[in-house]
Amino acid sequence: MTEQLTVQQMAERLLAADNILILCHKNPDGDTLGCGGALYYALRALDRTAGVLCSDPIPPQYAYLNLHLYKGEFEPSLVVAVDVAGIQLFGENNRVPEFARHVDLCIDHHAGNNGYAEYTLLDAGAAATAELLCEVIEAMGVALTPHIADCLYTGLATDTGCFKFSSTTARTHRVAAKLVEAGAHLEELNTLLFDNKSPERMEAERIARNHLEYYLDGRCALIYLTRDEIAATRVDPADLEELTSLPISIAGVKVGLTLRQQPGGSYRISVRTAKGVDACAIARRLGGGGHGRAAGCELLGNLENAKSAILAEVEAELNAREEG
Amino acid sequence: MTEQLTVQQMAERLLAADNILILCHKNPDGDTLGCGGALYYALRALDRTAGVLCSDPIPPQYAYLNLHLYKGEFEPSLVVAVDVAGIQLFGENNRVPEFARHVDLCIDHHAGNNGYAEYTLLDAGAAATAELLCEVIEAMGVALTPHIADCLYTGLATDTGCFKFSSTTARTHRVAAKLVEAGAHLEELNTLLFDNKSPERMEAERIARNHLEYYLDGRCALIYLTRDEIAATRVDPADLEELTSLPISIAGVKVGLTLRQQPGGSYRISVRTAKGVDACAIARRLGGGGHGRAAGCELLGNLENAKSAILAEVEAELNAREEG
Repeated sequence: MTEQLTVQQMAERLLAADNILILCHKNPDGDTLGCGGALYYALRALDRTAGVLCSDPIPPQYAYLNLHLYKGEFEPSLVVAVDVAGIQLFGENNRVPEFARHVDLCIDHHAGNNGYAEYTLLDAGAAATAELLCEVIEAMGVALTPHIADCLYTGLATDTGCFKFSSTTARTHRVAAKLVEAGAHLEELNTLLFDNKSPERMEAERIARNHLEYYLDGRCALIYLTRDEIAATRVDPADLEELTSLPISIAGVKVGLTLRQQPGGSYRISVRTAKGVDACAIARRLGGGGHGRAAGCELLGNLENAKSAILAEVEAELNAREEG
Repeated sequence: MTEQLTVQQMAERLLAADNILILCHKNPDGDTLGCGGALYYALRALDRTAGVLCSDPIPPQYAYLNLHLYKGEFEPSLVVAVDVAGIQLFGENNRVPEFARHVDLCIDHHAGNNGYAEYTLLDAGAAATAELLCEVIEAMGVALTPHIADCLYTGLATDTGCFKFSSTTARTHRVAAKLVEAGAHLEELNTLLFDNKSPERMEAERIARNHLEYYLDGRCALIYLTRDEIAATRVDPADLEELTSLPISIAGVKVGLTLRQQPGGSYRISVRTAKGVDACAIARRLGGGGHGRAAGCELLGNLENAKSAILAEVEAELNAREEG
């Protein structure tokens, strides 16, 4: 059972430590890496020894975070996890399991955080862990340098789709204002994070858009990519995540579906819904799960089987909603 | 010659008036309409009679602004323009020219505002006129209602591409925070403004992406739509504006070109450039103009002629830049 800390208590525990190992989650995103960088440079400003560790390689677009990766150069006396909701999200490489066995501190914004750390600062109302970490760094008495601001802005902007997602609050915008004032390179970062799509990803999106289909009187839109198409474009599968928001962005669409065939042949289905339609209920009936507006499941069989199975559940959910 | 006012002076001039006509610019966007709505409801909160006038119809996606359109029900004693950079942008319909002959007040954020009004509040550092108008409304002593906040958020979010454009500053985010606190419906508005693309627009984008071409070792990307393709999709040409940001969003691309054939057969070319490449210099050499990162020109002749003419200028500009 973890003990919940306040921002001030978390800051005090960090200030009391040295030789600090910062753990990010596997398949790292802008929030976990931005937080890793921000906390590292905040600790360095206080002359602490620290390092960042991640089970997976750092995606090249985040090179500017200039993460100091831990390579065994000190014996960690404190392990702190940033933006990691559960022990299973640490990953298996780079000696990560060895350190993830005992996590001292955890700073996170995922409501489902399962309390694996000894002490946890959890704020599910934060749009990004970076939003929360900004307060911790200030409570540590560290001035926000332009680079720390860049790291935190990275977390804030990527986790909110540049302030578009419904998780964005007044506090999110207020923290963004503070980071820009501290010297965050808003223009360069927004270009790098949001206008930097690989030609391979563009090609995959082109094919997916050529496969756009409407169902149920335009209330459901569907795109798909077969494994052969994915392979032919040589796109990084991680780059396809963003495509899942495409079908739901169409006017009148209540359920947006994205079907991506996996290397084994099965179809991974992402379900995105408009306000008031339960994505999780749709995915759960096919053995999947997720959140109210974003869920997923995986189906064996060919494309036509996968389509008809998911469309039947979408129709059932839309009908139930109209009757309800 | 116009007289420049401060925020406080603008507020005082508005407070001193009644029977106020608010003019928006033609081809209205979220900023001019959001400002029109916000100022109208602020004046109504002070029991003033007011109305909003625009030369063009209000696009249906802005119906929620609930604009009170002027229909001649009072004799205007004060005319105030919001987000209108020049007299030529008022338009010719709905009795607009009659009132645009003498504009008392102008609130704007366009650096190129040519001072057509008697008194002007101009702040080119504001990312949207709504950012500036928010201060005026506060200086008028009007509390931001949820609806006024919705109107101002509409201007702020649409003029910044949801806080992505380089015009976004710390103040932009601070005003956004204030609007969310005042009750702006951020989730619903972001869905309506950014995830509400018509099937016709999706189809036009599909075709344009099928026409994606790379030139100059991937430093230039180009998309195009012929007039027949545009006609076949039945897309509203205004919906194609957003496509111009597509080619420049690709990694490695320094110049993004969008060619749209006009009803008369000529090609309208939009030039978007990465930081450090002068879009205006490229367009100017072909008789066009614009800003440093976004410019345009129009070329007669067929598609191949238009392509080779613009590509020659792009190459010249990229080479000049490398030599410079």
